[in-house]
Amino acid sequence: MREFPFYNTRITGGFWKEKQDLVRNTTIYAVYDRFKDAGRFRAYDFNWEEGMPDQPHFFWDSDTAKMIESIACLTKLKKNAKLEKLADDIIKKICSHQDENGYFNVYYMTVDKDPSHRFATRDRHELYCLGHLIEAAIAYDDATGKDALLQFCFRFLDYVEQRFMIEKNAGFQTPGHEEIELALVRLYDYTGNKKYLKMASHFVDERGKREEGLTDWSHESYNQSHLPVRMQKTAEGHAVRAMYLYSAMADLALRTGDEELLEACKALYDNILTRRSYITGSIGQSSCGEAFTVDYDLPNMASYSETCAAIGLMMFSKRMMLFSADRKYADMIERLMYNGFISGLSLSGKAFFYENPLEIMPYFYKRNVSNTFKEHAPATVRKEYFGCSCCPPNITRVIPSIASYLYTEEDGVLYVHQFMKSVSTLEIGGKSVKITQKTAYPENGKVQITVKGSDLKLAVRVPGWCREYTGETAENGYAYMDVKDGETVTVNFPMKVHFIAANPRVLHDAGKVAVMRGPFVYCMEAVDNGEGIRNLKLNMRSRMKVVKNEELGVNVLVAKGFRPAYTGDALYREYTGEMTEQDIVLVPYYTFANRGESEMQVFTDHT
Amino acid sequence: MREFPFYNTRITGGFWKEKQDLVRNTTIYAVYDRFKDAGRFRAYDFNWEEGMPDQPHFFWDSDTAKMIESIACLTKLKKNAKLEKLADDIIKKICSHQDENGYFNVYYMTVDKDPSHRFATRDRHELYCLGHLIEAAIAYDDATGKDALLQFCFRFLDYVEQRFMIEKNAGFQTPGHEEIELALVRLYDYTGNKKYLKMASHFVDERGKREEGLTDWSHESYNQSHLPVRMQKTAEGHAVRAMYLYSAMADLALRTGDEELLEACKALYDNILTRRSYITGSIGQSSCGEAFTVDYDLPNMASYSETCAAIGLMMFSKRMMLFSADRKYADMIERLMYNGFISGLSLSGKAFFYENPLEIMPYFYKRNVSNTFKEHAPATVRKEYFGCSCCPPNITRVIPSIASYLYTEEDGVLYVHQFMKSVSTLEIGGKSVKITQKTAYPENGKVQITVKGSDLKLAVRVPGWCREYTGETAENGYAYMDVKDGETVTVNFPMKVHFIAANPRVLHDAGKVAVMRGPFVYCMEAVDNGEGIRNLKLNMRSRMKVVKNEELGVNVLVAKGFRPAYTGDALYREYTGEMTEQDIVLVPYYTFANRGESEMQVFTDHT
Repeated sequence: MREFPFYNTRITGGFWKEKQDLVRNTTIYAVYDRFKDAGRFRAYDFNWEEGMPDQPHFFWDSDTAKMIESIACLTKLKKNAKLEKLADDIIKKICSHQDENGYFNVYYMTVDKDPSHRFATRDRHELYCLGHLIEAAIAYDDATGKDALLQFCFRFLDYVEQRFMIEKNAGFQTPGHEEIELALVRLYDYTGNKKYLKMASHFVDERGKREEGLTDWSHESYNQSHLPVRMQKTAEGHAVRAMYLYSAMADLALRTGDEELLEACKALYDNILTRRSYITGSIGQSSCGEAFTVDYDLPNMASYSETCAAIGLMMFSKRMMLFSADRKYADMIERLMYNGFISGLSLSGKAFFYENPLEIMPYFYKRNVSNTFKEHAPATVRKEYFGCSCCPPNITRVIPSIASYLYTEEDGVLYVHQFMKSVSTLEIGGKSVKITQKTAYPENGKVQITVKGSDLKLAVRVPGWCREYTGETAENGYAYMDVKDGETVTVNFPMKVHFIAANPRVLHDAGKVAVMRGPFVYCMEAVDNGEGIRNLKLNMRSRMKVVKNEELGVNVLVAKGFRPAYTGDALYREYTGEMTEQDIVLVPYYTFANRGESEMQVFTDHT
Repeated sequence: MREFPFYNTRITGGFWKEKQDLVRNTTIYAVYDRFKDAGRFRAYDFNWEEGMPDQPHFFWDSDTAKMIESIACLTKLKKNAKLEKLADDIIKKICSHQDENGYFNVYYMTVDKDPSHRFATRDRHELYCLGHLIEAAIAYDDATGKDALLQFCFRFLDYVEQRFMIEKNAGFQTPGHEEIELALVRLYDYTGNKKYLKMASHFVDERGKREEGLTDWSHESYNQSHLPVRMQKTAEGHAVRAMYLYSAMADLALRTGDEELLEACKALYDNILTRRSYITGSIGQSSCGEAFTVDYDLPNMASYSETCAAIGLMMFSKRMMLFSADRKYADMIERLMYNGFISGLSLSGKAFFYENPLEIMPYFYKRNVSNTFKEHAPATVRKEYFGCSCCPPNITRVIPSIASYLYTEEDGVLYVHQFMKSVSTLEIGGKSVKITQKTAYPENGKVQITVKGSDLKLAVRVPGWCREYTGETAENGYAYMDVKDGETVTVNFPMKVHFIAANPRVLHDAGKVAVMRGPFVYCMEAVDNGEGIRNLKLNMRSRMKVVKNEELGVNVLVAKGFRPAYTGDALYREYTGEMTEQDIVLVPYYTFANRGESEMQVFTDHT
């Protein structure tokens, strides 16, 4: 299957138009300003000295790169001289400080300046940073025609090839944090230079071979080095790293026809889909290593569910989609788009979640008894800045480019994976075809698709959440329809409220249900329902009302439910069964924690 | 109120007779042998050298001391030359290596031998070890008339007085791990020497004063040093340390009439009782610091609930009971006796729990992704030995002396707090009174009490769990009755099954119930009910059957219930409400994990 670049599509209204405007007008500056405050850009003056504040970190270049890539995406959609100037200034500084041998890393050139320390420690993110710089360079060159950063990357990559593939004198064989692999494939696609495909293959193929020389195998799973990649069948370790690796594996399989690699990707994907992902699509079950744990272990409160991991799974899903049209991939992308990914951004556009738990009970977070003994607990309110601030600039590059998830094409069949009010101009079968989607999706399931410029076979995904679609659906979950040039077809996905149960093997959700309407997962917050929401029982027989919430600016659900009556101060007492009725308000999951700290839960008790 | 020593009572049958026989015939040797294997006694040859295995630890003396105290208790009930010989040998070695200045600690005399390191580090348990040695010395002298260890303690305490109260040149003012305070009161009671009462007061009064010179106040709560003790109103920090301190505070308040100290004890006790204890009576809500956390935070799986903390709360409860006859104290003791304390010992008598969680889901324990990043999880099966093996020898001293919780006396009124088949000879009002309990308690609630030797007013506790007692009960929960010399009174506490709900503020138990019958809390295990017990729903309308379980040798409950039907492999799917009926077996909580690793839960879903 063939994909289309995001800039072939103009989103003309609705949910994603609002988010794109928010990023363009607010979020990109919020990220830039916080980075500036934290010394991220000042660092590129290369005058940091011991004792000064804001010591550059070895992962800072990756944040800067994602910032530049975000500006490139926004600029590609709509020229913006102000943003371009910000990026130009940073790029100029970066390029001016590149070592003559091609190397660059702000930490290893301003803090630890001993050249022998470069590429000496596996987990120091130098190649991860380079990966993001490559992605930024491509995007920026494509958007502005300015190739300084791209030339910088060519020189850096020559040096990397020298150290890792020719002289083989680096302190490790493959990076501790993957990313460069998929960036190299992207660079191969952009330049046509096979050397970069070869380098990507090298870093993927070497991973997990005994030559790594490490013996602590259980720890190696942290960065997916516990086995050669073709032998990996379960998603292990740090979730973001895993997603970037698996994405690169799929990239390579697609370009080389490597069946073994594809089989590994399929096994890994299904393991995530059927065993190790939340109902919001998010992944990373434990804060210990920001990592996958074991099948069906999906704690709601202690979940890690990093925003970057959600993005990574969107990326991996899209790549898998290119092998075969099975709606499970686009379903997962949609699940993430409207839940586990977008929850990472506040409604104001200025604050972020690194972790996106499925439950917040604030008092739990106060239970740590001392500074010496700490348990990890996710933040309860979105923050403007993180010390490890990978997620904000990842959000700002994904939202402008979200349309890349819309369509793919195979043998003249246009697959419509996602729905948003939009106009796209796509090259199909040698013709320029204009596809217009008229819809209020995801608020309403009616989608009108107009084709202009050619007759076309459409394959429209019938979302997995929709059990009321009345048209014909192929086994792969797509509705195939022939459309004449100029014709409009209408599909309708009724958005009824659904109660979702987790597989009983997920003990964390035993006896509970989640509520979905359309692609949205809902949650309840104490701010609407009073403290102690874990005690609430949703009345499954009551009719839910869809009500506009003015404060949040979104539709919420109002249901009937019960709260147990309990009088007195006793810690334990005879169960009486007495309950009082109360309305229960459910808000879209992604809008949680926008009204201060509050209890929140996705899975809930019921009667 | 006046208490009676345990050896005034002979337990003649039933639950505690069996446990005492088990300790005498099995457990005491199991503990001794494991300690011996681990080099605990060999250490007293004082020939450990660098590089040798089994390096003595600074807390080893406390384990040894509790072992000796256990032998003393067993010996006091029934002479046992074999056990006495074991204790004599260890005592001889210990005494022979006492420093000429009186100091003793096997770690600081065989591993770190620099005398300047003695009493230099607050958290090195030297005074905690001495506390247990004092208790052992008293018990052993009382049981055997051999006073070598007592003389050793007198010499050691002179040195302690010198360092801490006269020269004040120790590296800290009060011990990091409390215990010596209550041991000193006990020594004062045993010897009548007021110096020891003064020393106890000193260590209690100095705690938490600014003079400690520490600034990390949040950490100081770990060992109850965050405030002067009279200002402490909530139970904080390491649960065992807290119990030993609070017990000493109550001891002092009782002996000195210090009202302020008593008020602090009352506040601390009520905080535990109404906010910070499990339905099993166990305490210590977090493995982070083995500590109390915040009100109503009572996680079932991550609970710490150390066996020693349960013992500590029995000790604190008993002391509080001496101030006023309120059944809440004896209720708590009973709750612990039959649940959170006795669960620490396997039915075989050979294996132990350090932690006594209220839920075990074995797969949860396999979720740690790497050696580098670990979460703490309690053991799922009882172990024969722990590196930190404080609990086993604590169990072996409590069971032989359990009868000390039976009676107290005030103004000629004999309070009957606990029920067990037994014969006691008590000195009341100058007369020797023989009290006989004929009962199958805790299996059956009928208790016949015969008084011989005097007319007597009895105050019999009506257990808080019993809502079906038909006699008159005073406000404090005791039934007062006049008994003539030679007369037998019968009380009956019907043992119906009760469903218990936790206060809704305990979010961990929201929507769930626990099952109790008599003093026993019940739990379900997967070994009886199939995997995935969190999914089971107890049918609250079904009649429970009491059935003898031959494998466990105890009565279990059989109820009706439901399990949700879920076919297919999907991780999430539409909730259908389909359920299949199944029998649910509930076993007494204390018998859990006696049939291998299995899921277990106390609080359960229901319909």
